[in-house]
Amino acid sequence: MSYNLAFIGFGVVGQGLTEILLDKKDYLKERYDFEWNIVAVSDLHKGSIYDPEGLPADKLVSAAKDDDLEALTTPEAGWVPFKVIKESNADIIIEVTYTNLDDGEPATSHCRAAFNAGKHVVTTNKGPVALFGAELIKMAKDKGVQFRYEGTVMAGTPAISLALEGMAGCEISKIEGIMNGTTNYILTQMEGGMDYDSALKRAQELGYAEADPTGDVEGYDAMGKVLILASTVMGAALTARDVDCEGITEITSEDIVKAGEEGKRWKLIGSVWKEGGKVLGRVRPEKVELSHPLASVMGATNALTYTTDNLHQVTLVGPGAGRKETGQSLLADMLAVHGALGG
Amino acid sequence: MSYNLAFIGFGVVGQGLTEILLDKKDYLKERYDFEWNIVAVSDLHKGSIYDPEGLPADKLVSAAKDDDLEALTTPEAGWVPFKVIKESNADIIIEVTYTNLDDGEPATSHCRAAFNAGKHVVTTNKGPVALFGAELIKMAKDKGVQFRYEGTVMAGTPAISLALEGMAGCEISKIEGIMNGTTNYILTQMEGGMDYDSALKRAQELGYAEADPTGDVEGYDAMGKVLILASTVMGAALTARDVDCEGITEITSEDIVKAGEEGKRWKLIGSVWKEGGKVLGRVRPEKVELSHPLASVMGATNALTYTTDNLHQVTLVGPGAGRKETGQSLLADMLAVHGALGG
Repeated sequence: MSYNLAFIGFGVVGQGLTEILLDKKDYLKERYDFEWNIVAVSDLHKGSIYDPEGLPADKLVSAAKDDDLEALTTPEAGWVPFKVIKESNADIIIEVTYTNLDDGEPATSHCRAAFNAGKHVVTTNKGPVALFGAELIKMAKDKGVQFRYEGTVMAGTPAISLALEGMAGCEISKIEGIMNGTTNYILTQMEGGMDYDSALKRAQELGYAEADPTGDVEGYDAMGKVLILASTVMGAALTARDVDCEGITEITSEDIVKAGEEGKRWKLIGSVWKEGGKVLGRVRPEKVELSHPLASVMGATNALTYTTDNLHQVTLVGPGAGRKETGQSLLADMLAVHGALGG
Repeated sequence: MSYNLAFIGFGVVGQGLTEILLDKKDYLKERYDFEWNIVAVSDLHKGSIYDPEGLPADKLVSAAKDDDLEALTTPEAGWVPFKVIKESNADIIIEVTYTNLDDGEPATSHCRAAFNAGKHVVTTNKGPVALFGAELIKMAKDKGVQFRYEGTVMAGTPAISLALEGMAGCEISKIEGIMNGTTNYILTQMEGGMDYDSALKRAQELGYAEADPTGDVEGYDAMGKVLILASTVMGAALTARDVDCEGITEITSEDIVKAGEEGKRWKLIGSVWKEGGKVLGRVRPEKVELSHPLASVMGATNALTYTTDNLHQVTLVGPGAGRKETGQSLLADMLAVHGALGG
């Protein structure tokens, strides 16, 4: 089966996926009977192009790096995101615009428009799923299209499909874990003897942390993932106001040493759990015992522990960010769409 | 959608699944639109019963404990496994007879007969998948039925679906891990100061180890899982002769202490990996660094680390045995069958 794909947004993740699709073209056809054709790319900064017969995928990444997609083809004017979503011949919309945890836009409107147009959506965008997850899941179901968002929690490490599909039928009462790699990297460096400022600087040099690291170090990125797990796995629509959120900026080198002396280790832990018929969420630094499965997760790696009825505790450890790692989530999502359509 | 279920074999795992199905009847209907009706149970020792309208599920477990299923109903004579598989109105065959790693029988013949009869199979039986995995997967596909076997590796901890579905599109070059809970429990106890014989005795008292512990302590159980991962995830039909297999019986308390002094820990590691265009497998005790994700997996818990192209390493930790834990794998498998049929 062959799918026409449209990218809405074309930054690092979209480019990473394109590279994977090119590398694995034959493998995907042979193993999964999955073929693809990129028909549209629409990016605010890099330009918008559409060709119902297919764009030259091998040239998209370098054109995007030059911020000049429109040099690739003779573009019909005006194939902006909503026109692509509504009027193109794409089967799957790959929503990879920037994450906005304030109001989820424009990504949420992109998702709604795609569902209304009968198009499937795969996304790594945390905004729509964190803020409107339950509504969008229901809307996709009502419209008979697929909506997949694996990459919103642990990139391609399949945290969502593990909970919803791998452990289907199991009831999950708590999910807790290391949901942000930047802060885990900083804490790991501090345990190695660096102070907070040096560790943050190192994380920035390595590209783990943004120039403005607020979203990571104050816990907001982890909070977004708590909201996503609440809406998608726990079925509860929490908002930022429902989640107590504390980052790692108050953790000192002395705290780190003291925890070590107690046989413990500081981790920034995101949690979402059921209590008294409600779903609650929290992000805060916690001292975990060294024997705890999350204690040995070091560096930029993420990990989640699911507490369930039938399986007691199951822990998943893997990358939570990265160009290829996040691109992989979109590939697995598209193969799941393909599977759901009988492919 | 409602499914008629037939149990072939009705030991601990089948009974565990029946209890889960009863406990979750309303939940499964509401959340997944999954309804069920047990129409047949056929067990070599406990008897065989069939009622196309459905058996009294709530009485099956206690009747099985008395080894007298046939007291439950007025059985038509002769509903032995092959008659149930070929002639009953079951949609899904739950193959939970005893594991036989020598020739995979009678379970492999049960699977083949079910596929020929157009029935789906879910199983926790290692024999058919370890010895004839590739053939059975192809046969089910050719016959247009589903074949699921999550519980053959880590009980309900979704080791198979993680690899095949959660990380779909990712190529896995190596899987290594702790594939046997009994031996991991014994090694953990030895690290706590017990000698091998006392640790084994404790494992037997707790029900982790059989009276004859050979299958666990000599590594054969882990080897079966290496064969299963080779055939299902790596697509290679290995046999027992292809896998070097060494158990934990030669590990002494002195070895344990010495490893600790080196900052390491003994684990019985099963591995399957691609090398030079071939798939290779091995089971042997290895000293792993304490910082390795598998080092912190203690007691009867299992864990697998997958080395992949797009996600580097992903580790899954969870139970690898148990009545409810293994029953859960069959439930997830049936919900996947339901999903594949559009449910």
